[in-house]
Amino acid sequence: MFNPSLIIKKKRDGLKLSKEEISAFIGGLSSDASGNLPGKNVATVTDYQATAFLMAVYFSGMSLDETIALTEAMLRSGERYDLSKIPGFKVDKHSTGGVGDKVSLILAPLAAACGLKVPMMSGRGLGFSGGTLDKLESIRGFDVHLSREKFEKTLESVGCAMIGQSEKIAPADKKLYALRDVTATVECIPLITASILSKKMAEGTEALILDVKVGSGAFMKTREEARKLAKTLTQVAKKMKLPTRAILTNMNQPLGYAVGNALEVQECVEILRNEKRTDSSSADLKELTIQLCAHMLELGKVVRNMTEGRKLAHSKLLDGSAWKVFQAMVRTQGGDVNQITHPENLPLAQRRVSWSSKKRGFINKMNTENIGLLLIELGGGRRKTSDVIDPGVGMVFHKKLGSPIQVGEPIATIYAQTHMDLTELEQKFHQSIEITKARKPVPKLIFEQF
Amino acid sequence: MFNPSLIIKKKRDGLKLSKEEISAFIGGLSSDASGNLPGKNVATVTDYQATAFLMAVYFSGMSLDETIALTEAMLRSGERYDLSKIPGFKVDKHSTGGVGDKVSLILAPLAAACGLKVPMMSGRGLGFSGGTLDKLESIRGFDVHLSREKFEKTLESVGCAMIGQSEKIAPADKKLYALRDVTATVECIPLITASILSKKMAEGTEALILDVKVGSGAFMKTREEARKLAKTLTQVAKKMKLPTRAILTNMNQPLGYAVGNALEVQECVEILRNEKRTDSSSADLKELTIQLCAHMLELGKVVRNMTEGRKLAHSKLLDGSAWKVFQAMVRTQGGDVNQITHPENLPLAQRRVSWSSKKRGFINKMNTENIGLLLIELGGGRRKTSDVIDPGVGMVFHKKLGSPIQVGEPIATIYAQTHMDLTELEQKFHQSIEITKARKPVPKLIFEQF
Repeated sequence: MFNPSLIIKKKRDGLKLSKEEISAFIGGLSSDASGNLPGKNVATVTDYQATAFLMAVYFSGMSLDETIALTEAMLRSGERYDLSKIPGFKVDKHSTGGVGDKVSLILAPLAAACGLKVPMMSGRGLGFSGGTLDKLESIRGFDVHLSREKFEKTLESVGCAMIGQSEKIAPADKKLYALRDVTATVECIPLITASILSKKMAEGTEALILDVKVGSGAFMKTREEARKLAKTLTQVAKKMKLPTRAILTNMNQPLGYAVGNALEVQECVEILRNEKRTDSSSADLKELTIQLCAHMLELGKVVRNMTEGRKLAHSKLLDGSAWKVFQAMVRTQGGDVNQITHPENLPLAQRRVSWSSKKRGFINKMNTENIGLLLIELGGGRRKTSDVIDPGVGMVFHKKLGSPIQVGEPIATIYAQTHMDLTELEQKFHQSIEITKARKPVPKLIFEQF
Repeated sequence: MFNPSLIIKKKRDGLKLSKEEISAFIGGLSSDASGNLPGKNVATVTDYQATAFLMAVYFSGMSLDETIALTEAMLRSGERYDLSKIPGFKVDKHSTGGVGDKVSLILAPLAAACGLKVPMMSGRGLGFSGGTLDKLESIRGFDVHLSREKFEKTLESVGCAMIGQSEKIAPADKKLYALRDVTATVECIPLITASILSKKMAEGTEALILDVKVGSGAFMKTREEARKLAKTLTQVAKKMKLPTRAILTNMNQPLGYAVGNALEVQECVEILRNEKRTDSSSADLKELTIQLCAHMLELGKVVRNMTEGRKLAHSKLLDGSAWKVFQAMVRTQGGDVNQITHPENLPLAQRRVSWSSKKRGFINKMNTENIGLLLIELGGGRRKTSDVIDPGVGMVFHKKLGSPIQVGEPIATIYAQTHMDLTELEQKFHQSIEITKARKPVPKLIFEQF
């Protein structure tokens, strides 16, 4: 007979769980507000047993086989989209989350312009990390809650569609994620792996590129941890027959120049329209997007190698194809196209303040997590999922790591609510930016590729 | 602001929790059926956070200071009895649980006969381990649910009183214990320590002797584990100003000859009446009781040393004083005295079967946990707390470790329900008893004293 506490004990004692045990445990989770497990009336695993299990997994870990079984069980807990009737190769990208990471908004239309189909299910920002859905929703009317039919139609006609996770996709993951969030069991490689892959497999993609972020603005602070996660993700995906690559990328400074939802949309529009600013740089964002796109094109066999992939991606960005796809997607998903063709119409905060350097030297370090947390304090991020965010606030950075800076020269322009007292925030901002006399070498953008 | 998940994270990461953090976490537990925390309406710590915390404690451990803070917080969650108005020194004994451990039934009246007051709160049997309350309840009418007033009156007039844990005593422990039981977090020294000591301190005892069982029929299977528990218990108790000793005792065979509730009462009555059987031995049970009583007498300063204590205990057993106190207690707590003066009237199962040896040699090993589990299968123990038990079934052992045995000679007499098929049980019984040609040295009864 199925006894959840024996499964917890086994994991606690560092023993391997069988596929059947993992399946029974996940299948026995209760269905409630946060996880609507279909067809289940009586839970055989209580929430308090689930969290004891999660903590035991945190400490004892899981083998590759166990992680696969966990991913499969979570995938099986909900619907699985079948996109095979839609022509074209479907590839998706997932990022483990960072600050200023707006890659998806450019990458999805760019990959679509290159001939792929991009069925993208994204998340919201939480804590220091931003979320693609929040960025898209700063465009008036943009609907991230498409029905399955509308999602498939958009994907077919536009080439990409960007939506939130449906309630019916991997509800066991939704349930467990909500529990992990309040029981200090988020940072755990097998749990992260099963959470990401169960959702991605359910959405019907045929291949996947993973952008595993490393550094002060990422969940993984060290290369070692990130590498371990990347390896587990690719190994599990491979065993589950989902062609998957992972790249480890630098999150020791915000990606691009903008941090804040509408500001980030504006930065994406600039890149899609091949516009260049003189006061800020999006070079890293653009480079990462091209590289990720090349991987997707190679995975989808649109090109024979990365060089061809990069070339094709560059050309489809330059010739305005990606920009056209982006406009089509915004239009199809109900967004106000005028706001992206005229980004000055995006709901940007009208109060703008420069925060300038008090030192002369070079920007040598940024506490990127703190920068993400500053966005919350400005009103543009969430501490808890029920928080309402202000899309217009944020920061435009005029300096990147390695930039020389003079006394009195602006590091960033702050977009803030009219009546907010910024004194303390400015102090925190300066504490997050380290300026030293000597210029330290700037770390690479892309550390490793798997 | 109090955030339970940060406390879980801190413990998960192996950091020390402050007194305030532990107090807030325990104080925030929900009040429900199993733990009626007084004065609490809204729980700030959910059950699923409590179990994640318990598992984190299982892995990360707790320092002495943390264990003290946990004990204090659990103690504070409920009432604390004040027995100071009752004359006499109050000493209690607690055993970590074993098979055939009926010491309390003899020890409480014996210590009372020697001049101490023994306010004893006991538990029920669960799993392989027996419980004092179940044994007492095999006496018709015996009431273990005395009101606080009746408890104090009995203690004062009789010298001892034996009851179950009131709902109002350490409800946080009751709550956590129920959660630990189903989340594989029972075997954890700081949690065991806080659970035992919070209850004992709440019942108003002035000193405590702990019988920490070690061996195949105990929760602690090794001397090392048991020693660690004993040390933690005595250290925490000392810091909390409760004079406490612990002894490590052998649980590699049932204590005394009887396993089963009414049978164990019968064995106690025999010892209290100074009767000797020829077919079975209670020597270890009697010796342990005398030794524990001597410790209690020394703790209570009734005697100056252990030698005097043992002498006094022996004399009060021999002269029938302890037997008189036992009868008085049974009478005062509503029990049928006729059943103990004529133990043949105890509800003993009428079907009796001998299980005899198939080998010649010496009894060299007993899997005592399995013997405890056999009692459950006979109907005399519980798998889950809601199980109803049959007081009349059990086993009378005619052999102890080291006993020589012939082929066909009975190892034990089984008291069983009339229609139960015993074939499989007999097989399991024989698998639990190891008979070898050479006689191995019998381990000591008392390993260490703290």
